[in-house]
Order: sequence, then C-alpha cells, then structure tokens
Amino acid sequence: MTPEATLARFREYMVGPSRFMTLLSCFELGVIDALRDRPGMTATELGEIAGAKPDAVEQLLFLLVKEGFVARDEDSGGYTLAALGDVPERDLTRALTYMNMIKVVALRQLFYLTESARTGTLVGLREFYGVTGGTMYDAVAEHRDLRDSWATLMDNVTANIDPWFFGNIDIPAGAQVLDLAGNTGLGAVHAYEMKSSPGLRVTTFDLPEKEAEALENFRAHGVAEQCSFIGGNVFEEIPQGFDVVLIKHFLDMFDKDDVIRILTGVNRSLPAGGQVNIMVPAYPDDLRDTDNYNVDFFPAFFIGCTMGQGGPQKMSTYRSWLEECGFKVTKAVTKDTAEIPKDVIPVPAVLCATKAG
Amino acid sequence: MTPEATLARFREYMVGPSRFMTLLSCFELGVIDALRDRPGMTATELGEIAGAKPDAVEQLLFLLVKEGFVARDEDSGGYTLAALGDVPERDLTRALTYMNMIKVVALRQLFYLTESARTGTLVGLREFYGVTGGTMYDAVAEHRDLRDSWATLMDNVTANIDPWFFGNIDIPAGAQVLDLAGNTGLGAVHAYEMKSSPGLRVTTFDLPEKEAEALENFRAHGVAEQCSFIGGNVFEEIPQGFDVVLIKHFLDMFDKDDVIRILTGVNRSLPAGGQVNIMVPAYPDDLRDTDNYNVDFFPAFFIGCTMGQGGPQKMSTYRSWLEECGFKVTKAVTKDTAEIPKDVIPVPAVLCATKAG
Repeated sequence: MTPEATLARFREYMVGPSRFMTLLSCFELGVIDALRDRPGMTATELGEIAGAKPDAVEQLLFLLVKEGFVARDEDSGGYTLAALGDVPERDLTRALTYMNMIKVVALRQLFYLTESARTGTLVGLREFYGVTGGTMYDAVAEHRDLRDSWATLMDNVTANIDPWFFGNIDIPAGAQVLDLAGNTGLGAVHAYEMKSSPGLRVTTFDLPEKEAEALENFRAHGVAEQCSFIGGNVFEEIPQGFDVVLIKHFLDMFDKDDVIRILTGVNRSLPAGGQVNIMVPAYPDDLRDTDNYNVDFFPAFFIGCTMGQGGPQKMSTYRSWLEECGFKVTKAVTKDTAEIPKDVIPVPAVLCATKAG
Repeated sequence: MTPEATLARFREYMVGPSRFMTLLSCFELGVIDALRDRPGMTATELGEIAGAKPDAVEQLLFLLVKEGFVARDEDSGGYTLAALGDVPERDLTRALTYMNMIKVVALRQLFYLTESARTGTLVGLREFYGVTGGTMYDAVAEHRDLRDSWATLMDNVTANIDPWFFGNIDIPAGAQVLDLAGNTGLGAVHAYEMKSSPGLRVTTFDLPEKEAEALENFRAHGVAEQCSFIGGNVFEEIPQGFDVVLIKHFLDMFDKDDVIRILTGVNRSLPAGGQVNIMVPAYPDDLRDTDNYNVDFFPAFFIGCTMGQGGPQKMSTYRSWLEECGFKVTKAVTKDTAEIPKDVIPVPAVLCATKAG
C-alpha cells in the first residue's frame, strides 16, 4: 500500500460522517419520498415540501447526484430518482431503520470514543442523556428516542435472523432449553415454534424485571404451557436442570474476562454432554480478505455507544475460549455474506459446543 | 447501478461515523505513536500506554489491521505499523489536523443537519455550545476547543494554498488591492509578499473588530507601510478606490442571494476594467466523473456545522453568477487533483473576472 493510497483511504474516512448525514437528511427532509411520488420536481418545489430553503435542498442533493442515487435534468432543473428508484421500498426501509439507529445511538456518542475506551464507561451516554453507570440497554428504558430507534431495529434483526440460527442448530426432542439473557421471551417463543417436539420446554433466563413482560409474551403467542421464565443474573448463578443453553446476541457485549465467566457458568450448569448454542457476530479469521463489515462498526459501537466494553471476536477466538471453559466445539458456521442483504452490517455466526465428559 | 450496488453503497455510508472515530481514536490513544517508537508491542503493553483496557485497544485495532494500516503478528500478538509506517509524519499530521477539526466542529453537530437545513440556523452549535444566532466563525472567538481545532487547520490551509492562488492571478504593478473579508490580514501579507511591485498597496476589509490584530500582523511581517485595514461589512458598502478585489474562502459560505449581493457590491465598488479574483472550493460541472470530494463534505459542513447555509457551487454556476453581476470571466481554473495530497478534501478553484465596461 503506497503512502498515497493510505492517505486516500484517510480521506474516505474523513468524509464518513458528512456522507452519512447528508444521505440520511435527504430522506428525513422527505425529498426522496416526494420524488418517488412526483418525479421531476425542482429544488424550489422540493424545498417547499421539505420546509427548507431550495439552496439547502440543492446542496444536499449534490452528493446523491454524484452517487447516481438521484438524477438532475440540467435543462429543467428537475430531479428524479435514479438508482434509488430501483431499490425495493422494503429494502430501503430496512437500511433507513439501521441508519436512524446509528444516528441516534452512535453518531454524537462516538465523539467520546477515546474517553470511553479509557474509562470503560459510556461517556457519550452520560453527556447526552445524563446516564451514569449503566449501559445503553439500560438507558433505552428511560429514553424514548433511544428506545424507538433501537427496538425497531432489534425487532427486525430478530425476525430476520432467528430462522437462520434455529436452522443451524439441533435441539433433541423433548429437551429442556434455557435461553440465556433471553430478554422478554421472544427468543424462547421462536425456539419453541421452530424446534417444536413433544416435551420440549424453553425457559427464558434474564433479570427479574423482565418476567412480567416475558410471561405476557408467552401467553400472547399461546406457548404459556411450554415456556417459562427464571429471574437471575448470568454472572451469579446459572440455573441447572437444562440440556441445552442458547446464547444469542450476548457474548459480543463483553470483554474476555466476562465471556469466560459466562461460559464457565454455563458449563457448570450443564450435565456432561449438555449443549450450548451461540449466535454472535464474528470477525473472520483473516480480517483482510472479506466482505465482512463487523470490524468497521462493532468495536466503536460497543465501546463508545452501548457497553463501554466488548465487541465480537474472531471465530478462532470464540472456539478457543469455549475449549478453555470445558466445551468441545461441534460446529462453527459464519453466515454466507451472499445471503445477507448488501446494506446489512452484522454478519452472524453460530457456534455449537458440548460439555466435555 | 443495481439495487444491490446501491444498498452496498448505503452500507459504506453507515460505517462512515464508526470508521472515522475508530481510526482517530487509535491516534488519540497514543497507540500509533507508541508503535512507531517501539514496534512489536502487544495489546497489553499498548493498553498501559493508552490508559485503556487491552481488550479495547485490540478491538479498535482490528479495523486498522483490516485496512493494512497496522499489522499483527499472530504468534507474538505484537503489532507493528504497516502502511502507516510508510506515510511521512508531516502528511499524517496534516490528515490528523483535519480529522480533529471534523470531530470537534462537525461530528456531533451533524446529528441536527436536517433541523439546520430547515431553520437555516446552526442547531448543533446551539445544542452543544449554547450559541444562538451566529455562525461557527463567531463561536470560535468564545469557545477554545472550536478555535483550536479550527484555527490550526485554517493556518495550514492558508499556508498551503495561497501560493497556488497568487501564482494563478495577475495583479498589475502598483495596483491598489482590496482583500475582501480578509480577516486579520494574513491574506494581505501574502498578497504583498507574493505579488510585490513598486506602489502596490493591499488593504484588508473586514469587520472593525479585526483591525487591531490585522495591524499587528502587518507590523510583525514588516509590511505596515504597504498594507492597511478598513473596517466595514461586505453586505453594506464595499470601499471604492481599488483596482483589484480578492475574495478568498468566502463565497462558499453563502446562498445565492447573498453571493449575488456581494458580487454586485464588488462590481459597484470597482472602476470599469477593475478585476475580481476569487478562490473558492468548487464542484466539477460533471459531478460524477471526478476525484473531487467537495460534494461529499461541504454541503453538510456549511449547512449543519458552520453557517446554516451556503456551500460551494459548480464552476459554471459561479461563472454565470459573475456575469449576472456585470463581470466578464477571464479565467476559471480548478486545481489539478494530482497536485493535492490524497487526504485533503477541498479542491480549490480560481475565477478571475473584469468589470464590463
């Protein structure tokens, strides 16, 4: 890599924040929807719809013209959707949901990334929301804008990815399953629905304050007989009596010492031959040869915006940590990026392991 | 452009903020300097130097390894500078000065880009600094962090770009030159030094509060006899008695109506045959066929971060506005991007015009 190529790459990074908000702002201003409804509008007409001066609309649209997302007719001054007109609205909605989450949960907070890395705390969350001593996942309970941007995204993610996860794991007929850090029970519902067998029972394990909502979810989905809830803390004692433990979207939130504590606790809770099935975004072992964007996003996101620590690991790292904690890894699969929509950042992986005898 | 290509481009945009801060944070943590001094340090050693947990250092460095900026030896766990080791420190310093400015002046403020575009005000500056009713250029006087990040950059930019500007314009021997919005006189000093001729006089025209510092600058540079200062407001009355007006780094701060007011005022102030020489970043007429990043940065930067309006224009637009205001354009040159360091965003242009007879 020549010094010129390195510096050119720096320039790509430098325009990252302005590109991000310029694109999102064109959607927020309603300009893209307006052009879908009525192609050919000028900056003056779009300005009226956006409630902004035509000059500002024209400025922000320059980038979208450069990208070929939008086209401008030089004679009429009218804009039309170019590449953006060919993207199914469902795909655009998914991308915009993610962009909005990044804007609300990350953009400002990243200013304090270095201070967050040094203190292991969420300095941005403190500065912008007055939240001290918790994580972003705690803060969503108190702050509606965080919750709206976060929960909307997470519901989409869970709906899209759970079928892939359950398609990749075995749950023996009639097994007793524990969904670790299972939040308000949606994962348990999916587990029951997607791996149904006579005698299968799924228990959500999470903080006691999640119980009421989890039980309500079980009733609403008609699985109150087969799903239950246990309140507790994964760092204290993990309940025994289960054959299979599921750990989804969780290990990436912690540094190694905590991941080891969790996996050790899970190992201790299981009988010999018991299984753990993990879903987590993972880095490829060769960071450089891939279409995997986890590395471009998650370190800063976890350290600076949601946890003050954590981040995914390479597959080989998760494998070695599982072995360190008394497991034998039986399966390690990363989702084929060709199967993931091109705008989606997280590339998930599944690791299955058995408690060594 | 296929829908997949469009969505992939969205993903590039989505990781823009996190990539930007991850890279900058590795420098802020001192990790890069430490590796330059002592290659081969592990995350544990780097964590001690950075004052951060090794886990966080390792997470943030993943991206730099992906980019090939840094290399990690898998056996020792030691890091070395890869591509970053080949970039001259002077170049890195320039890039980091710009990145720091973007972080301080733009990153958080861009959150409010849409609201800024709608109101024509700097909502981010109000939210983060309590500044209402002015521009970022006013706010730098009150806020040291803004000033430090901004002034350091601007001094670099002026030193790098003024020789190119003055090499591209003619100033007749003995001319009387007005440097419009010339701030505290550095441009006037450069004009005198780079275009020296018997009888040449250069006058800085700016708000009256800049006078003392400008006069001090003239003394310090030994040009107190040849340079002077006139206080005033470009939107009210532009002083007469000058043959040549310079307008540098200024027109891009305003929307069309204000640019027209400025150029009309300049035209009125000049005698027939009088000249105006403009330096401004400009968009290429064909937005899509270029290495020009002005469009990726300036619209959001001016509207959301520094002015609440403005942004550069295409060369053809500046040309037509000059003609609309009674000028004949005699020269229009955009700097060859091959002559600009690859990390530098602004691509400047020079427009020279004569007052029509």
